Formats: sequence, structure tokens, C-alpha cells
Amino acid sequence: MMRDEINDCLERLTSHLKNGAVKEACRYSLLAGGKRLRPMLMLTAIQSYGIDYHPYIELACAIEMIHTYSLIHDDLPAMDDDDLRRGRPTCHKAFDEATAILAGDALLTEAFYVLSHDQNLNADKKIKLIEILSEASGQAGMVYGQQQDLYFENRKAELEDLKNIHAYKTGCLIQAPLMMATIIAKEEDLAIWREIGKYIGQAFQIQDDILDVIGDEKKLGKKTGVDSIHHKSTYVSLLGLEEAKKQCESYYHKTLEQVYGLQINHGLMIGILESLIKRDA
Amino acid sequence: MMRDEINDCLERLTSHLKNGAVKEACRYSLLAGGKRLRPMLMLTAIQSYGIDYHPYIELACAIEMIHTYSLIHDDLPAMDDDDLRRGRPTCHKAFDEATAILAGDALLTEAFYVLSHDQNLNADKKIKLIEILSEASGQAGMVYGQQQDLYFENRKAELEDLKNIHAYKTGCLIQAPLMMATIIAKEEDLAIWREIGKYIGQAFQIQDDILDVIGDEKKLGKKTGVDSIHHKSTYVSLLGLEEAKKQCESYYHKTLEQVYGLQINHGLMIGILESLIKRDA
Repeated sequence: MMRDEINDCLERLTSHLKNGAVKEACRYSLLAGGKRLRPMLMLTAIQSYGIDYHPYIELACAIEMIHTYSLIHDDLPAMDDDDLRRGRPTCHKAFDEATAILAGDALLTEAFYVLSHDQNLNADKKIKLIEILSEASGQAGMVYGQQQDLYFENRKAELEDLKNIHAYKTGCLIQAPLMMATIIAKEEDLAIWREIGKYIGQAFQIQDDILDVIGDEKKLGKKTGVDSIHHKSTYVSLLGLEEAKKQCESYYHKTLEQVYGLQINHGLMIGILESLIKRDA
Repeated sequence: MMRDEINDCLERLTSHLKNGAVKEACRYSLLAGGKRLRPMLMLTAIQSYGIDYHPYIELACAIEMIHTYSLIHDDLPAMDDDDLRRGRPTCHKAFDEATAILAGDALLTEAFYVLSHDQNLNADKKIKLIEILSEASGQAGMVYGQQQDLYFENRKAELEDLKNIHAYKTGCLIQAPLMMATIIAKEEDLAIWREIGKYIGQAFQIQDDILDVIGDEKKLGKKTGVDSIHHKSTYVSLLGLEEAKKQCESYYHKTLEQVYGLQINHGLMIGILESLIKRDA
């Protein structure tokens, strides 16, 4: 239901873009399905305060635009050089490299247009959302994580390096929707949600590494065993499967402790957090 | 003086970025000199209203970050495949493609961080600046222009196509600083500055085409005659040199008419507009 609403909104937000290859490429990648975890996290956190999330769906879609842009650019030949994403050709394979680069640029820029153009939130809060999202996705966040990931492609990453890569590459854009929800729902809780985001981001990434070993290719829509082929350090390669599972659990428990400290609908929030950690795809 | 202040500010704004190849690449491209036309346009327009421009230098630098990101991405092998920019190796030549893509992404994102993080303007006005700049640089503006430019690489562009390409590719990011200045100085004048930006953008691009034919390679810091080697339609190839010069003059005169209709320091504004049109580099 919430996911359908997000999908409808993404469809609507990109339908008015100027026609051409870049619009097609943006929509090809953005409307390819996907779990919509990041916007779902934001909207569910808002809902957990007993607030109607519907006025904020567009704002949540801005986060999905940033996430999709990062996938398009990460898949490029000069970066991770991936041909498949969610079981379909990656953007630069379905179109061409130039169009994929521009589609990423367009989605990144459009995200900030959506946040600024929104009619439901006052300017003070919108500015805070833009500050949080731009910090989380730029050189102080996701871009830095991708840089570090590339840096360690030909070097052995130790556990601390790995934690650092993932804290930025994946963690920041899982933290951001929770922090953005707090700006809308209850600013005083910001520090706690920042912590929740940090722990759940780490748990999410460990589960990602675990799925690369024990996951089902069909469900995942991508090849497994890729990390080990590339001799890439992962939580599983550094800690072993059992210890990795234990650490994932431990981060998840830290998350739960924080969640129970908040005056929110705990069940609602735990439902979505659990779906992140116990996912099989 | 104003240009030095802009350069100092760009240096300061990027000095705190997280260390690594992407930071180096951002600074390599951003601090490579350049005329700083776009931030100068914004600050001079503010000044022409008798307002001290100093509190707004950071905001103006956000526009230069967007401009620089677009140069880095446009130079990539998959796009215009340029090896030289301002007499130095382009970003992906000095670093590598992955780093250049990420540096562009980082600068684009950082621009919106700078606008949202600014401490001198109220949130209402900051939101308006972000809306203007994101619209001007995304799929409704500069990115669309680059898409159209690539589209016509292997097709003959007629005069109307050419005007359209440049209105988006170059024009939008010349219009934006003037519109942003108006938000700060006098919102009622927005429509007039939008017109001024449109005309001066066209004149600027015609002068660019003219310089590709009669310009001095040393002053320009890049090769001339490139358009004709690539059989690219330009104002000069479609209209001839004399008629192109005449049209440039004509757009410039339209600009002046609008400028004289405003209650501002005309001399100040005309000084910078003239430097755009009568430039030899």
C-alpha cells in the first residue's frame, strides 16, 4: 500500500520531465521496482508518531531519486561495471553511457527540486531536510563511501575500513530518511534516530554480505558469490558466516533498545526495521 | 577584487571536505581559475541595487560548483571526450574516470548543501534559491541542453534547434544567478531579470561560436576551429560570421533595454554584461 503510493508518486514526479533519452533513462531506472526501503523508512517513522504520512510522500521520493542516481553511476563501466540490476540491463546498457551519466545527474538535481518545490512543509523544515539529505549523499556521506570502496578494490580492507566504507556508502542514506522523518515529526528526537540509523545501516550491510554468500540469485535479481570472486573483504570473509550473523543481530538489538526508548508506535517501526535485517532479497 | 573573494570562498568551502581522491579532484577542477562569470553576475546584480554583496558570496559559489560539475561530466570520454580544459588536463585525465564522475556528483550535491547551510538568508529565500538553481541545472534546464547537444552530434541542427540547445545548455545557468540575485534584492523584478538572462545567454553563446572561429587559442586555453572539424552547426556556420556578430549585438541591445528599465546602478551591471559579450576568451 505505502509502497504503491511511493511508486505512483515517483511515476507522477517524473512524468512531466522534458522528453528525450534522459527522461526515459531516469524512468527506466527509477520505476524498475525496488523495495523503496528508504522512502518507506521515512514515512513509517512519521507514521509511528501517529502522524498522517500522506502529505510527505513526495519528500520521501526525493530520497529514492538520490538512491537511484547512485545506483546508475555506481554501475557505470568506470565504476563497478555492472551489466545487470534488479534482473534487467543496467541503465548504461539499456541506453548508453552518456545518457546514464546525465540520468544520474538529472535525478540527483531533481531530488533537490522536489524538496524545495514541495507545498506541504514550511521553508524552515524544508531547508533542514535539504541540509540533511545533501550532507548524507555528498562528499561527507555516500560519495565518500563510494570513493573508499573503490580505493579498497585493490587493497585489503580490515574490519575497521569495512565499517567505515559502509557507514558512508550505505549507512548515510539509511540514516537520512529517519532523520528527515524526525524533522517533520519531532525534532527533539533527532539524536536518537541518528543512532538508530547508524546501527540499522551496519546491520543492513552485514545482511547484504551474508546474502552474497547464502542468498538466492533469483530472489536477489543479481549474481551471488561476487564479493569472493573479486577477493573483496566482507563481514563474512573477515569474520566468518556465524560471527557475521551474530554481529548483525547485535546491531539489530542496539536498534531495538533505542526504538523502545521513544514514545512512538513501536510495532510499526520494528516491522519495517525487521524487514530490512531479516530480508532474503 | 570580487573575483578574488569568490576564489577565496571556493577554496574555503572545499577545504573541509573529507580527504581523498574526490576532494583533490573537486579542488583541481574548481580552483583552476576560470572567469567566475556566474557568481560575478549574481553578486554584481545584488550590488547594482545598492546592497552589500558580501553576505551572499557563499551562495554565489554554489552556482560555480554546479557549473564546474557540468564541465567535469561533459568532458568525460562518454560525453564530449575532451583532454584539455583551461589549458590543463581535464579532471578524468588528471585523475581517472571514476574519480571524475564522483567529483562531479560531489560538487553538484555540495552546491545544495552550501545553499541550505548558509547562515545569512532566511529559509523562505533560501528555498527559492534552491528551487531556481535546481530547475535551471536539472532535466528542465542544463542537463536537457546537454542531452540535446549530444542528440544533434550526428544530425544537422537548424537555427531553431541551436537556439533551443543553447537556451538550456548555457542559458539556464546564466539566467539563474540573475534570478537568484533578484530573490535577495527585489523579488518584484524577477520577470525582467529572467528576460535579461535569456537574451544575455543567447548573446554569450553566439560570442562563443564566434571565438571558436576568430579567437586566440592561447587566450582561450583551448583549441579553436573545433566546431567546424566536428561539422557541428553553430551560429557562424548557419548564419556566417557577419550575421552572427549582428545577432549577438541585437541580443545585447535587447538586454540593455531591459537593464535601463530597472531602478539599479546601470553602469555597474552593464560593465559585467559587456565583459560577457565583448570578451576575447
